[in-house]
Amino acid sequence: MHRGVARQNSDIDYPSRKHSGAGRPGGAAGEVMSYSDIVGHHSMVFDRVRNAAYAKAMENIITSESRVMDLGAGLGILGLMAAKLGAAEVHLVEPAIPENLTAELARHNGLEQVTCHEATGEALNPDIEVDVILSVFTGNFLLTEDLLPSLFRARDKFLAPGGKLIPDRARMVVVPVSAPDEYNKQVKRWDEASAYFTEKQLPPVDFGPIGAFARNTVYYNAADAFAAKPLANERILEELDLYTATEAACDARVDAVITEGGVCHGWLGWFDARMGEDWLSTGPQAPATHWSLAFMPLAQPIEVKRGDNISLELKRPELGEWTWSTRCNLPGATPSQRQSTFLSRPFSPADIQKRSQNYQPTLNNRGEALQWLLANMTGELNAGQLARMLQENFTGQFPSLRDAENFVRKQCEDLS
Amino acid sequence: MHRGVARQNSDIDYPSRKHSGAGRPGGAAGEVMSYSDIVGHHSMVFDRVRNAAYAKAMENIITSESRVMDLGAGLGILGLMAAKLGAAEVHLVEPAIPENLTAELARHNGLEQVTCHEATGEALNPDIEVDVILSVFTGNFLLTEDLLPSLFRARDKFLAPGGKLIPDRARMVVVPVSAPDEYNKQVKRWDEASAYFTEKQLPPVDFGPIGAFARNTVYYNAADAFAAKPLANERILEELDLYTATEAACDARVDAVITEGGVCHGWLGWFDARMGEDWLSTGPQAPATHWSLAFMPLAQPIEVKRGDNISLELKRPELGEWTWSTRCNLPGATPSQRQSTFLSRPFSPADIQKRSQNYQPTLNNRGEALQWLLANMTGELNAGQLARMLQENFTGQFPSLRDAENFVRKQCEDLS
Repeated sequence: MHRGVARQNSDIDYPSRKHSGAGRPGGAAGEVMSYSDIVGHHSMVFDRVRNAAYAKAMENIITSESRVMDLGAGLGILGLMAAKLGAAEVHLVEPAIPENLTAELARHNGLEQVTCHEATGEALNPDIEVDVILSVFTGNFLLTEDLLPSLFRARDKFLAPGGKLIPDRARMVVVPVSAPDEYNKQVKRWDEASAYFTEKQLPPVDFGPIGAFARNTVYYNAADAFAAKPLANERILEELDLYTATEAACDARVDAVITEGGVCHGWLGWFDARMGEDWLSTGPQAPATHWSLAFMPLAQPIEVKRGDNISLELKRPELGEWTWSTRCNLPGATPSQRQSTFLSRPFSPADIQKRSQNYQPTLNNRGEALQWLLANMTGELNAGQLARMLQENFTGQFPSLRDAENFVRKQCEDLS
Repeated sequence: MHRGVARQNSDIDYPSRKHSGAGRPGGAAGEVMSYSDIVGHHSMVFDRVRNAAYAKAMENIITSESRVMDLGAGLGILGLMAAKLGAAEVHLVEPAIPENLTAELARHNGLEQVTCHEATGEALNPDIEVDVILSVFTGNFLLTEDLLPSLFRARDKFLAPGGKLIPDRARMVVVPVSAPDEYNKQVKRWDEASAYFTEKQLPPVDFGPIGAFARNTVYYNAADAFAAKPLANERILEELDLYTATEAACDARVDAVITEGGVCHGWLGWFDARMGEDWLSTGPQAPATHWSLAFMPLAQPIEVKRGDNISLELKRPELGEWTWSTRCNLPGATPSQRQSTFLSRPFSPADIQKRSQNYQPTLNNRGEALQWLLANMTGELNAGQLARMLQENFTGQFPSLRDAENFVRKQCEDLS
């Protein structure tokens, strides 16, 4: 039902992403990739630009006395580099990869000072104290993936007084751009679908109503894929001091003065992170890394000329929706446009009700099947018995025994 | 933490995949895309090659009497085309998109004969009878995603005697290929990581043990991205008659005679599907669609010359793992190599135990939290109250109230 994508790039040949990417592996039944799929770590392990930035910062900080934690270590590339640089003690903390594998990698490298923890920082023994925490908890547009709150918790729990974080500061950066090709494909094509289908000699279905969803979507993509032309100097929207921050959210506004006229189709966003003395940029002018740029489209493109003013207000609470508001005071242009990812997905009235704090839920058929299963995961019945009973009692949910077996196996993996 | 990818292509500008792709949207909190993210349907709605094949088959079958079901309709492109072609009655069956949206699209197109069902075929009223079932339940390598069993159930339940399926036959096709660049990047680079890091002036971490996982991974990618050179004529591995099939599995063997010498790095696999009289191919020689090719690597590449024989045995039970065995009788080559996606992921001894039918599960902390929540989704407490109580009772699982609120909201969406 789907086709992958590819991109050639100097140092990161096959950038890939959780659940995807070119050369994307399809390991597990169901073919949905997760961090526990080893090959998905390829793009991170072989992201030279990223690794060089971390390594340089480590070289300046790590001594033979250093106790180091690699938080969310994946295959442990950063922590193993720290150990190769001579750190006294290295803790790889990673819930999705079994510690017998990371331990094998440490042994294979002859690094006896490495300890592997198959756990999140939240679940880890609080007696550990370290001098350096390495983390890659910066999502594409910094807050994406909501990983930073776990870094803050680990910092408060494990970092010795005077200890160092790599990275220790992070910025969200934006610039207004002209990106006609991307905009036409991702947004306008929905408006003009029936003409597109007619041209392709297909029955001309009109998808006009979808345009509103497309305008409220944040698109993540590699720098060169957007072919976006900056119309102003980049602006720092938000800067987090990772030593002191307690929340990973954004509620900020920037004003931009147009330096190059053209049609503004939206905003490009990315993050820069400080590693030691240097900043690693993931912006369009910097060498490519495995991170993506974020493109936040306007509902209606705005024609701008040199010297015009345009502003962006961006809100994004922790674990919440992205809302971007663009304001200008230009002839012929909508003075204020507001987009939100909340409007990027279709919700039925029932869906909206279910998102309310006042919603009083009762279980549907699937919920009842799961409740039955959890109630019977008491150590007495085995997985095969549970699957057979589940299929007998909830045939509508599990048309075949294999469906029930897969469901039971998944719950065993997650919840036992 | 991740970077997207891009690929230019004639008719499908931004092929994307569930949970990914270039120009990949990142809508929902957590930024994991699903079918309910509208923009993820872009690559399917605007896949001209695919749509033209379905449209041609429909033109030859659909009359003003036809009752049509579009099973797993997504935004309804195929069903709406059928209605535009004059079908008497069209049922869009789609669980992930709210029917108020698909109904709006039907109204917007003035198609009064369209009925929208926010449901799976399994959950749908069995009184519906149709003359044609349209479906796109063919995953990248046919069985990928395990969608076909749902087609078989819907066929048995809804298709009138003498009714038609589009597609009605599907083949799995394979060819041995030389793909040195892909193989070096995806497989050999793990073997040679420490040399790679040394060359990049980074601490030389050795990732040798990961090579075994990489060799047991199926890679999905666009045709041109593999730059794979076929070494033999393509061979049909398995052919399913969708009118009569009851199982979507593969257990088949093909022998290939090498037509072009070179180094064989593995097998390329794809599917062809019959729509009416014509076959739509998703193979490397056919025009690109939104589907991906599958690359199944060998553990050790084999040097072959014209006239040599090489065979593939492929097993893949429903909802199961892919196992590919390559045999040859050539000087200097390993006579038999067997790979399996079961070996593509690291499992701890505990994980392996959890996959056994004899495993007797008891709930972990997360399981207990979920059990508590399900037991309290009785219609008396609201989502806000449930989140507060959950956070108080299971602090380790939900460090902040927001974590608990998100967890409750997700369970409300899925299970109520």
